[in-house]
Amino acid sequence: MNRSNDRATDRSIPHGTGSPAHGSTPYEALSGADFLQLNIDDAPSGGRADWLARRLRVAIADGHLPVGSRLPATRVLAAELRVSRGVITEAYQRLSEDGHVAGRGRNGTVVVAAPAKARPATPADPPPLPPMPPPPPGALFDAPPGSDIFDALRAAPARIDLSPGVPDLAAFPRAAWLRAERAVLGELSASALGYGDPRGAPALRVAVADWLARNRGIRADPGDVVIVAGTAQTLTLLGQVLHGDGIRAVAVEDPGSLGARQHLRNCGLGTPPVPVDADGIRVDELRATDAPAVLLTPAHQFPTGVVLGGERRRDLMRWATERNGLIIEDDYDAEHRYDRAPVPALRSLLAEHVCYAGSVSKLLAPALRIGWVLAPPKYRDALVAAKRFADLGNAALPQLVLAQLMESGALERQLRLLRARHRRHRDAMIAAVRTHLPHAVVHGAAAGLHLTITFDAGFRDTDLAAAALARGVKVQPLSWHSQRPQRPGLVLGYAAPTATDITEGMATLGEALRHLP
Amino acid sequence: MNRSNDRATDRSIPHGTGSPAHGSTPYEALSGADFLQLNIDDAPSGGRADWLARRLRVAIADGHLPVGSRLPATRVLAAELRVSRGVITEAYQRLSEDGHVAGRGRNGTVVVAAPAKARPATPADPPPLPPMPPPPPGALFDAPPGSDIFDALRAAPARIDLSPGVPDLAAFPRAAWLRAERAVLGELSASALGYGDPRGAPALRVAVADWLARNRGIRADPGDVVIVAGTAQTLTLLGQVLHGDGIRAVAVEDPGSLGARQHLRNCGLGTPPVPVDADGIRVDELRATDAPAVLLTPAHQFPTGVVLGGERRRDLMRWATERNGLIIEDDYDAEHRYDRAPVPALRSLLAEHVCYAGSVSKLLAPALRIGWVLAPPKYRDALVAAKRFADLGNAALPQLVLAQLMESGALERQLRLLRARHRRHRDAMIAAVRTHLPHAVVHGAAAGLHLTITFDAGFRDTDLAAAALARGVKVQPLSWHSQRPQRPGLVLGYAAPTATDITEGMATLGEALRHLP
Repeated sequence: MNRSNDRATDRSIPHGTGSPAHGSTPYEALSGADFLQLNIDDAPSGGRADWLARRLRVAIADGHLPVGSRLPATRVLAAELRVSRGVITEAYQRLSEDGHVAGRGRNGTVVVAAPAKARPATPADPPPLPPMPPPPPGALFDAPPGSDIFDALRAAPARIDLSPGVPDLAAFPRAAWLRAERAVLGELSASALGYGDPRGAPALRVAVADWLARNRGIRADPGDVVIVAGTAQTLTLLGQVLHGDGIRAVAVEDPGSLGARQHLRNCGLGTPPVPVDADGIRVDELRATDAPAVLLTPAHQFPTGVVLGGERRRDLMRWATERNGLIIEDDYDAEHRYDRAPVPALRSLLAEHVCYAGSVSKLLAPALRIGWVLAPPKYRDALVAAKRFADLGNAALPQLVLAQLMESGALERQLRLLRARHRRHRDAMIAAVRTHLPHAVVHGAAAGLHLTITFDAGFRDTDLAAAALARGVKVQPLSWHSQRPQRPGLVLGYAAPTATDITEGMATLGEALRHLP
Repeated sequence: MNRSNDRATDRSIPHGTGSPAHGSTPYEALSGADFLQLNIDDAPSGGRADWLARRLRVAIADGHLPVGSRLPATRVLAAELRVSRGVITEAYQRLSEDGHVAGRGRNGTVVVAAPAKARPATPADPPPLPPMPPPPPGALFDAPPGSDIFDALRAAPARIDLSPGVPDLAAFPRAAWLRAERAVLGELSASALGYGDPRGAPALRVAVADWLARNRGIRADPGDVVIVAGTAQTLTLLGQVLHGDGIRAVAVEDPGSLGARQHLRNCGLGTPPVPVDADGIRVDELRATDAPAVLLTPAHQFPTGVVLGGERRRDLMRWATERNGLIIEDDYDAEHRYDRAPVPALRSLLAEHVCYAGSVSKLLAPALRIGWVLAPPKYRDALVAAKRFADLGNAALPQLVLAQLMESGALERQLRLLRARHRRHRDAMIAAVRTHLPHAVVHGAAAGLHLTITFDAGFRDTDLAAAALARGVKVQPLSWHSQRPQRPGLVLGYAAPTATDITEGMATLGEALRHLP
């Protein structure tokens, strides 16, 4: 173990030359920055807390900071790194929020959960399962159960569409896509145009694994990644697999995505509702349902926008371990955080029990129909078989183009561009809500592509949505996404329209509200 | 009814101005070329019989030549059109082969079945079902049922791959694809990048309807076309729909595609085998199974290559009508005929009872994962719902690019190019079979991307395929595609490899056969 205190000479020591003790290691046995091979010069200015949190997660995953060990005292580490204590405190706060560490009073901050390590790829290893998709907007407003709500709403004309679930499509990087496609077509072997691996193109699976490591704290082997046609397909494939395993119910957040619930029910699964509060899903209520699986949106709950709290995350992990339960993590818009880096995915903590689902629907465009799944080992083979029977695997060319955009950094640039645009739209929406709907409470605006507003007044939100649609503005009533009674509310997407549309849409909503009978 | 005999003045009469009697109309009541508004100047030189057959099919579908009416005498029509009687005879022969007309001795040639008419698109109209896909190659040779035969064979390395089911992938029109993609990206509205119609992009559904009319004699409304991820997806979606309708068995051709059978079985459907002879599926044996549905490849039976005969087609139609049975028509490689135009699809005769499935897997590349389905009205809504739950619809960009290639004529040019290349490969394969496997009988070489050879000798074809694979040549044993005992045989794809590879592959097969224990 490298214990030198001379930072300058130790910067070049490669990761892994130390040989940390495993098991419970007292803090006294650990040094700070040196032991962790931290070099503050690597940190981007203005992003030091992010950088430190990321490095600490790696150290926890590697076993350099095993479960039970204490983190260096903030004062000590700040001095070693020559940064303010605020940076250290903020980084520790991130780790606490995502469930890796917990405060233990005078005992300091202790590692309580390790992210999953990358496993070596073995052909026998089945690839992981998928969580749930943000639903394509649905339903004319009081459509009876079983009616074709998706098509009905899609068909309804609207001057301003504030349906949630779609990024700013005008920002789609057409030139970059075409350049990448030209490169792909120039290099492609003829055999790549034949029948391929049902799990997806190897190049994209590598690119997705890299993306998840960089952006979501997940260390997955490309052999574990299964490419699918979006999270909607993930839910249907996984629903088939779970049904085949004898499972008949998947608990869901309430409120929670209507579309996701419909996909699960179409697979013959019940969807017992579990309440969501300011810390996310109520794990005690999840226990009470006795469901063996749960679908949730921990990074940015749909539609309320709350983040699953650190203690709640740990409790959820306990539920999964004790009950041998399955967590389906729908990570639908986690990359779209405005105030700070997204919390790491649950998958990074407990790969054995988490089926992780992501897609490009909120990063690029839903029309690409590309997503990915990391299934727990138990369901990996069955999920790949389901994908094969579904369609023999995704189309090759768009996969290879996307892989180029991911590996070249173009997708991260696109994400930065989108964040800036979406943030402006969000700010315009919040300002317009304050002006035109002064009694509405805004929820979940720290991230994502939508926000939710609720009202204390006693009207039906379906009436308000219908009145708005009659005035040319399409929004989703919160009650669509609720199985149990909720306060009236609206789910408002702000990604696609212009800021002017947004302001006008809020003014129209205010007018519709004033004229409600 | 227009009865003028002055061809010159009648050429401009638009289709449909006549008002033909319906029901049984004696030939004496009909004129020839004039009544049918035929103008030989419209016919391409060298393709007059094709042209005439096509026009007659239209007239039958329109009711201008109702069921029961007699066609003009060949001598009369030849004189009217100023062409040789051979042209007329050949056209009538085509109509007879595809089941529209039948010889009635001295009563001449009588219309016995009408193609389906195009229906107007109504939102309430469900879109049509799909037939079966040529299977992706499968199975290490004696893989036990349930083993993962697709991956196993795919993983087996081979110097020369003669697996059937793939066109010449080196001929993929990369430049045309990229040009079309540039045009699509230049014109696309932002909203086309959102969630779309689960039935597919409207532009592609129009292009496919046009393609089917031009190439397959099918008159379908674009509203009836559902775009899917290849025929494999068609089979799985349709299998789910049929199972949901209480159907538990779909009869299949024997021999017939292993992959298709696996897809149906995965949906909980039995696959009772029905023998195939030189005229195609034995309809008497189909009746004996009592199955309510049948999957078949009428244009070019997989793997034997026989064409479903005219009398057999009529008998199959009777079966479907009497039993209210469903015919799933897998039209997997019908465009690839070398000697003459393909026979029209069964769908063109009896839309109410035929679910038609096609794809670009044999026209362009399997990796595109694009196909189409025309379901009978009964199953259309359910099929669209199944597609929505499967993946919310195919990806938009490749659909729009394909639509461009279809509408611009680029796909037809590609098909002509492929036909010429495939024909050379086929000829090389037949010559090499004669040289190196002189005792083999060649079947089904008039069309498609593969041929089948059988042997009288008493060895196991799985042993021969395994011996060939040990020598670096991959072929499929006929017994894979058979549920009941067959003569030993091999299914040999000739599309992908070069002519040199083909000759070398046949030489290797001959050597492997000589060394069989």
